[in-house]
Amino acid sequence: MTRIAVLGATGYTAVELIKILLRHPNTEITALTSREDTRCVGEVHQSLAGRLGLYLENLTPEQIADRAECVFCCLPHTASAKVVPALLARGVKVIDLGADYRLDSPSVFEKWYDSPHPDAARLGQVPYGLPELFRSRIKESPLVANPGCYPTSAILPLTPLVKAGLIEPEGIIIDSKSGVSGAGRKPKQTSLYVECNESIAAYGVGTHRHLPEIEQIISKGSGRAVQVIFTPHLTPMDRGILSTIYSVPAKPLTQDEVLDTLRAFYKDEPFVRIVEHLPATKDVSGTNFVHISARLVGNRVITFSVIDNLLKGASGAAVQNFNLMFGYEETTALV
Amino acid sequence: MTRIAVLGATGYTAVELIKILLRHPNTEITALTSREDTRCVGEVHQSLAGRLGLYLENLTPEQIADRAECVFCCLPHTASAKVVPALLARGVKVIDLGADYRLDSPSVFEKWYDSPHPDAARLGQVPYGLPELFRSRIKESPLVANPGCYPTSAILPLTPLVKAGLIEPEGIIIDSKSGVSGAGRKPKQTSLYVECNESIAAYGVGTHRHLPEIEQIISKGSGRAVQVIFTPHLTPMDRGILSTIYSVPAKPLTQDEVLDTLRAFYKDEPFVRIVEHLPATKDVSGTNFVHISARLVGNRVITFSVIDNLLKGASGAAVQNFNLMFGYEETTALV
Amino acid sequence: MTRIAVLGATGYTAVELIKILLRHPNTEITALTSREDTRCVGEVHQSLAGRLGLYLENLTPEQIADRAECVFCCLPHTASAKVVPALLARGVKVIDLGADYRLDSPSVFEKWYDSPHPDAARLGQVPYGLPELFRSRIKESPLVANPGCYPTSAILPLTPLVKAGLIEPEGIIIDSKSGVSGAGRKPKQTSLYVECNESIAAYGVGTHRHLPEIEQIISKGSGRAVQVIFTPHLTPMDRGILSTIYSVPAKPLTQDEVLDTLRAFYKDEPFVRIVEHLPATKDVSGTNFVHISARLVGNRVITFSVIDNLLKGASGAAVQNFNLMFGYEETTALV
Amino acid sequence: MTRIAVLGATGYTAVELIKILLRHPNTEITALTSREDTRCVGEVHQSLAGRLGLYLENLTPEQIADRAECVFCCLPHTASAKVVPALLARGVKVIDLGADYRLDSPSVFEKWYDSPHPDAARLGQVPYGLPELFRSRIKESPLVANPGCYPTSAILPLTPLVKAGLIEPEGIIIDSKSGVSGAGRKPKQTSLYVECNESIAAYGVGTHRHLPEIEQIISKGSGRAVQVIFTPHLTPMDRGILSTIYSVPAKPLTQDEVLDTLRAFYKDEPFVRIVEHLPATKDVSGTNFVHISARLVGNRVITFSVIDNLLKGASGAAVQNFNLMFGYEETTALV
Repeated sequence: MTRIAVLGATGYTAVELIKILLRHPNTEITALTSREDTRCVGEVHQSLAGRLGLYLENLTPEQIADRAECVFCCLPHTASAKVVPALLARGVKVIDLGADYRLDSPSVFEKWYDSPHPDAARLGQVPYGLPELFRSRIKESPLVANPGCYPTSAILPLTPLVKAGLIEPEGIIIDSKSGVSGAGRKPKQTSLYVECNESIAAYGVGTHRHLPEIEQIISKGSGRAVQVIFTPHLTPMDRGILSTIYSVPAKPLTQDEVLDTLRAFYKDEPFVRIVEHLPATKDVSGTNFVHISARLVGNRVITFSVIDNLLKGASGAAVQNFNLMFGYEETTALV
Repeated sequence: MTRIAVLGATGYTAVELIKILLRHPNTEITALTSREDTRCVGEVHQSLAGRLGLYLENLTPEQIADRAECVFCCLPHTASAKVVPALLARGVKVIDLGADYRLDSPSVFEKWYDSPHPDAARLGQVPYGLPELFRSRIKESPLVANPGCYPTSAILPLTPLVKAGLIEPEGIIIDSKSGVSGAGRKPKQTSLYVECNESIAAYGVGTHRHLPEIEQIISKGSGRAVQVIFTPHLTPMDRGILSTIYSVPAKPLTQDEVLDTLRAFYKDEPFVRIVEHLPATKDVSGTNFVHISARLVGNRVITFSVIDNLLKGASGAAVQNFNLMFGYEETTALV
Repeated sequence: MTRIAVLGATGYTAVELIKILLRHPNTEITALTSREDTRCVGEVHQSLAGRLGLYLENLTPEQIADRAECVFCCLPHTASAKVVPALLARGVKVIDLGADYRLDSPSVFEKWYDSPHPDAARLGQVPYGLPELFRSRIKESPLVANPGCYPTSAILPLTPLVKAGLIEPEGIIIDSKSGVSGAGRKPKQTSLYVECNESIAAYGVGTHRHLPEIEQIISKGSGRAVQVIFTPHLTPMDRGILSTIYSVPAKPLTQDEVLDTLRAFYKDEPFVRIVEHLPATKDVSGTNFVHISARLVGNRVITFSVIDNLLKGASGAAVQNFNLMFGYEETTALV
Repeated sequence: MTRIAVLGATGYTAVELIKILLRHPNTEITALTSREDTRCVGEVHQSLAGRLGLYLENLTPEQIADRAECVFCCLPHTASAKVVPALLARGVKVIDLGADYRLDSPSVFEKWYDSPHPDAARLGQVPYGLPELFRSRIKESPLVANPGCYPTSAILPLTPLVKAGLIEPEGIIIDSKSGVSGAGRKPKQTSLYVECNESIAAYGVGTHRHLPEIEQIISKGSGRAVQVIFTPHLTPMDRGILSTIYSVPAKPLTQDEVLDTLRAFYKDEPFVRIVEHLPATKDVSGTNFVHISARLVGNRVITFSVIDNLLKGASGAAVQNFNLMFGYEETTALV
């Protein structure tokens, strides 16, 4: 039984995480934190009513370390990096669902997040929590940087194709469509029902913080310097990301070669499925699965990938990493 | 050409009102106000981009009276009542889309709105802006209290039946389902997309401020003291209200008698339709129409009424009242 | 390991059932049937792609009995009753998710389902699969009639209150709001996205087939003859049912008495939660839980209950019954 | 007063068309046709209940010509081309909302629509009903080919940029997101609420019939041979199309040059707005407007355009063409 603390328990990734952990035979949730909210978690998230009696608390790293062997951080950027050193120093393992440890370079972090990094020395040493690419490092590390939702949907289809030399590493266009839960639970006009419903629009064109993450990880995973254009869109649905990705073939190839390369790369992966049909976000909604397909049209390779942004794009991946870090079966509580 | 000012131009009722007025051949919008927002209205409401060049302004009643012959107030409660006296004193006609002048009794207002009424002496003299019941008074009044959205959906089907003595005036149950736009445009957690989407729940059971309004107006319109139970529900859609209303027959009657009584009562009304089928909110979405039907089941009369809460439930009714007050054809810009 | 067949595997209840069974440690799905579809189940339901290799087959009861110890029937009415006798005769246990064995009276069945019952002699002997009311009989029976979705949402809040004599057994009004998945997966105009989205309407008023089921089971569960008015509404969401239920107090009582009576009745139930707040369908979406609350307003007891119509209202309840019938822990694969 | 017939009056474009025509001061609807449905139009479309008393009829071209001076065809492909010659021969003007007269080449039509063209000789002579590009020809023609919805959203932003030599005419990627109403009102599983809701997916990749139309019209409008990749996506909303379009600059340029070129091209157009912000489909929902914006990112010009697929993408454009063909003010009934 591993004792678990969830830091920042008021949001959408936290409630999904808690639901998975309640299904997990080897975990016990012992602390939930919030800086301001002190209600019972069943009031903060009505879906947990009667399922978990914990109250939210404002705890120090020391108090957290006394209660938990593993900490999941669901915190705004820079907030994780302020508590992670103290937690690691006390022997607690950490999975950071935020962005603090995803980028390798402190200056790149500072440029995209408008803030100096509070734990800059550690950058570059933290494995990126995508088991499909970095499983062995994840198993051995006390700290894992859980991937961003959009990056997961882009990195998984692209890395094998770039690595195999099937597509050019430059001029890749990632047109992503995400459900609204990705915008978080903080009240703001752009997240209101009436603003989002019955409407689709692009946002953050050329400026979204997941862009450098995507480029860094595909480059690292494939061994080639990758440059992408990334256009996220807010789509009227709770959850799900579809990334439609356009790339240029690096040599003459067929659609089957593309699909076979993906199949071979992911043949032993428990959560990745290469499918013939065009995948819909609903196919993986509520699951930790990734469905990927591809088409060859007009001298472009078009790949399609779908994930549930709150699960494989956040809390599901986090538990997958947790299972690896603590020696549990990788799929526990996830299928 | 009537010059128009809209007070409180940042919300959903205001943008719908402006769109109707832009179609109206006899109106010119000359002022839009906000206490805080000073942007061009096409930025505040992207749907108006390039259609209206006005900027939002923080104006005094005097400045407003210099610019407009008619004022539509889309303000929070008590805010209208603070400016209406000064506007009327300067000969400006006012249609208040808020709740300030709907109730006749200052003490009832204070009880339900937790606030003393700033213009209490005027209560009881202002016609309720439902032309189907109070057309002649609306035509003659410089101030009209535009109805609440739920009340419109409940008063129209119930008043003829109570008045005709077909149903008992007590024990009426109004189970209403509303789209989320009724909750306004101010950011709050309960109005977020992810909170509302894929979910339905009751709220304000026994405490909703439209309850005394419903009882007062049906009582006044029918001449009998009416008592209702009102249960509003937040429904995952932008707009629309369906009220399913259960009442007890006051004498043996048939379904056709109920429908015929409604048909006779509304036979000359341009916006009320008595239909045989069970109406859906979408049937009247984007229009000023009301569809009403009825069933007789298990010794209960069940009436069904649908409106667009932002149009017949707010801005459409407001323009219908405006047309009456200024001598324009009642349906102008509304069909 | 119990071998399972699912009859009628193309619809929404079937895919939910299969997903639960894939999580169940003690089941193996060995047959999926369809009269017409012969595709792999991962093509019929893209969410199962790569998770289950079975093809749909048109099988006789004999063939099914060779392959399975337990059969779940997801078939149209009368179709189950045509195969159940043969399955039972071969020692197979059956959970019927359809309506064939819910009503006790062949004539009532024939009246509401416009068809004589193919296995009339068995009616009245089959336990109704609501463990909260009939657990001991379910455990011992080779055949269980899984409840309808609306009935589950109405029976659970009402039975304890009628039984305790808190509310009158007559004049009960059940105003229910259901997601569209309840209408099934067969293409018809009224189930199209554009017809249902952004709209709510009542349907089947006074004629819905769940009405006699609700009355029969509450009467049986409470020992008093119950009569209800039942108004279902189609709500723009995938899944979820909210029933808002109005009843008349049988004696002076308080809101707390109502809540306490419900709490006492369900205190040991793993899936029923009595909550203080007004429950939303989303609170239980994707789960087997039922949330119930109550208010006392204007001499009416108003109870609110929410379920996921595909889970506690269908496939979740079916697996709960399966667990009881085969001696597994009742909550297995359901939390 | 122009007498109007609508052929194929059961679908979504027809009901939108009828609603616009009911607002039009110079039209009278005199005939509505269907091959099978003979109900009153207010039953076929509940939103028209009590607004129009016509019944659907199965009429010959001769009967239609007796009743109408203008015919709008809302028919499946090849059905229009079978009646148009007879209508034109009788002096009736025709606006075809289908695809029959959009392509210039009979062989291209046959290739993409799997059917020989019933009126092949007329192809190449019919103006494409996009007034922004072909206004003068539309005014003079008795027959106009109303544009497809996706093509409108792609042609308007691209043509000025290709024509001005700002972007390369090859390698253009059009990633389009459409609401479900584009799939029509015929019941099919892929259009069901539960299939579409909470999900987004691509479809028709490389095979959608709007592809040759887009290429033909931009080529014709710009004078350069254009080649595009077109990826439509089904988005969970009733209406609206967003096209996110990626093209390669043909020379060094700035974002302002792109926007200014678009502004200059459309400066006198009543329905096209070039906006600075990223447009959302909701901004133009229920209107005949087009909002277009652009960004310059990573050596790509990204243009964004939004329309209401049922209005500017179908019935709104049809009335705009009608107004031009009959000498009415172009914006009549459309603002």
